[in-house]
Amino acid sequence: MMTVITLTTDFGTNDEYAGVMKGAVLRINPRVTLVDLCHLIPPFDVMAAARMLDASFAYFPEKTVHVIVVDPGVGSSRAIVAFEMDGHFFLAPDNGIPAYLIRRRMVGQMVRLRVEEKNAHRVSTTFHGRDLFAPAAAKMADGIPLSCLGPDVDPAGLVVVGEPGHQVEDDGSVCARITAIDRFGNLITDLDCRALSDLMGAFEGRDLVATLGQGWVRGLVDHYHHVPLSRPLVVTGSRGCLEIAVNCGSAREYFKVSRGDGVRFSLVGKESHLDK
Amino acid sequence: MMTVITLTTDFGTNDEYAGVMKGAVLRINPRVTLVDLCHLIPPFDVMAAARMLDASFAYFPEKTVHVIVVDPGVGSSRAIVAFEMDGHFFLAPDNGIPAYLIRRRMVGQMVRLRVEEKNAHRVSTTFHGRDLFAPAAAKMADGIPLSCLGPDVDPAGLVVVGEPGHQVEDDGSVCARITAIDRFGNLITDLDCRALSDLMGAFEGRDLVATLGQGWVRGLVDHYHHVPLSRPLVVTGSRGCLEIAVNCGSAREYFKVSRGDGVRFSLVGKESHLDK
Amino acid sequence: MMTVITLTTDFGTNDEYAGVMKGAVLRINPRVTLVDLCHLIPPFDVMAAARMLDASFAYFPEKTVHVIVVDPGVGSSRAIVAFEMDGHFFLAPDNGIPAYLIRRRMVGQMVRLRVEEKNAHRVSTTFHGRDLFAPAAAKMADGIPLSCLGPDVDPAGLVVVGEPGHQVEDDGSVCARITAIDRFGNLITDLDCRALSDLMGAFEGRDLVATLGQGWVRGLVDHYHHVPLSRPLVVTGSRGCLEIAVNCGSAREYFKVSRGDGVRFSLVGKESHLDK
Repeated sequence: MMTVITLTTDFGTNDEYAGVMKGAVLRINPRVTLVDLCHLIPPFDVMAAARMLDASFAYFPEKTVHVIVVDPGVGSSRAIVAFEMDGHFFLAPDNGIPAYLIRRRMVGQMVRLRVEEKNAHRVSTTFHGRDLFAPAAAKMADGIPLSCLGPDVDPAGLVVVGEPGHQVEDDGSVCARITAIDRFGNLITDLDCRALSDLMGAFEGRDLVATLGQGWVRGLVDHYHHVPLSRPLVVTGSRGCLEIAVNCGSAREYFKVSRGDGVRFSLVGKESHLDK
Repeated sequence: MMTVITLTTDFGTNDEYAGVMKGAVLRINPRVTLVDLCHLIPPFDVMAAARMLDASFAYFPEKTVHVIVVDPGVGSSRAIVAFEMDGHFFLAPDNGIPAYLIRRRMVGQMVRLRVEEKNAHRVSTTFHGRDLFAPAAAKMADGIPLSCLGPDVDPAGLVVVGEPGHQVEDDGSVCARITAIDRFGNLITDLDCRALSDLMGAFEGRDLVATLGQGWVRGLVDHYHHVPLSRPLVVTGSRGCLEIAVNCGSAREYFKVSRGDGVRFSLVGKESHLDK
Repeated sequence: MMTVITLTTDFGTNDEYAGVMKGAVLRINPRVTLVDLCHLIPPFDVMAAARMLDASFAYFPEKTVHVIVVDPGVGSSRAIVAFEMDGHFFLAPDNGIPAYLIRRRMVGQMVRLRVEEKNAHRVSTTFHGRDLFAPAAAKMADGIPLSCLGPDVDPAGLVVVGEPGHQVEDDGSVCARITAIDRFGNLITDLDCRALSDLMGAFEGRDLVATLGQGWVRGLVDHYHHVPLSRPLVVTGSRGCLEIAVNCGSAREYFKVSRGDGVRFSLVGKESHLDK
């Protein structure tokens, strides 16, 4: 049985970096299945990586080792942490990613990766993905106890990257943000669908309205085809968050918005009219 | 022995979608070798995906499971079909792709994927690649009989996407289309080389001429180096179709053409002159 | 135990070529782990591929088979050579890549790939990656002796691509070149750090200065964070060569330079001032 290792980086695909990291894993542990989650995280964007893995890891087999190398602090004294959570293993720089992943979840053991004296001369200062992350991931996939990788770390001390979070306005509307735009131009917000009724109250007799960029769209639908071709819609996306899409088109182009832009969600009576 | 699963999608590589699909496969069946055929099919372009797989599948080992998720109808009532053909297995939405793949070939059993009642609540309406295709492909790679996946389907009832096809003109020339342009700028047409003499008659004493965009090129050659550097040529491409290329250059730029544009192929006497 | 095969090509990722090559490998030898080193080598740029593999192969397990298909001469009479070096195996067209890889290293057996008469009709003239490289790599990963693939070749007769090399100026400065620019905008030069003191003398009491594009940068530092955010620096890059970077920024944009541009490295007294 081959253990799975996933890789999430901002290395891109023009360079040898992701491939070399795989070589460095296989050199130590050839009995792994390597899966690229994504190598096109925007350079240095730790939160984009954190959100992507947060939405993805549970679909992999238990005991998968998830490695994230979005690491603007490479070579500095920032820590690399390894931990267990929900039956999966994680390896990431302590730059906001681990803290984001463990919020709302029970984390098991967490350790700080130790560089062994005898290997220090082999560790570059610019490519820890190859020289530190890959060997540690190879060992984790082989079942090494985390305590062999370094000393325990208290999750309470992790670096936290502050995020705006949702704002509930006086009129009951909720301001969320577009945290990702996918290849199809779907706008993925940070508003978790399970939190909707807590935040906004019951939907009965009311319609959800999303206001963004140069327009708005009314009604939460089940799938892209509940509206005509080229028309916008709001749907529960694959990350479990509200998503604004256009049936067989691009919501990015339709609304002329960018990643990071705000979206206001509100509820209106089913009878009420909205002006353009 | 690991069964191969190929993935052909329009998911792109900026997002987690292809990686998550692999996780969902490996969660059910870790004894597979996953191969990306392509994730950069133009969004929703079912025929580009169909043509690519059509030209590729036979190079994979027998019993490979080929999964195509170019699926503008995701979430709607369109069917997903699984079938056996030429010793390979296929899984694709019924949107023109299966009908294209089985034209001219003997298809074995074909079934419509059934969503089991007990799993229905876990199936999203926006990401069937992860929630329906991946689990089914994992089981197919494990050797499950197709009849366990759903009821039989009659291939005669599949959705067919009409395509222009070749036109034979009064003067004996053939109008084909550029169906793909690769990274090198090679123009791949839909004119199968094995059909050439049937369509155009014998070549003896005559030269093939391709007319396209802002120019023409004379002579079907064996390989790119039969003409000087930066000169155009016609060759039998790797898909078995006529291809227009430029030796160590880009035919796309040379002829200023786009995907979908027409190419007229004709035969002229070896002695005859062509004006620029 | 699965043997690793790495692939380095200029096929890009929009087309089926890399995927089909993997199919052709797996059809012959399913017990391999395929790793993409890079498919985005600039089209026909044999030296970019040579330099990338040169800097990468040693990080893979011993006995890995490294396949390079950057092959502007496909279909012509150029040779394909297979060889053993430093415990790894290599398969590449004889177009400058093998000669570059074996410079400064001890090469073991080297053979010229023979196309068997009985298979010749199956070999296209445009896609040797699929029809010649893949089957040979599959057999090499299976441990076939190189002598079964073709007759011995004398490495002294390999095609050599002339390269400018470093120029040492009268004032002791060294002119190097930017041979690659990675996704982060880091400028990777061809000046090997181990050659520095041989070329330039001892650093004691002196600072390294790099002059390039519209500016210069002073001081060789240990890692990106030895300078403030958005400031330039010189560092030993992951390929072991001098690299010019900007802390959490792009040196490409900072200096407005392109691949192939020159960089002058010189040593100045620690006390001396430099004008902007």
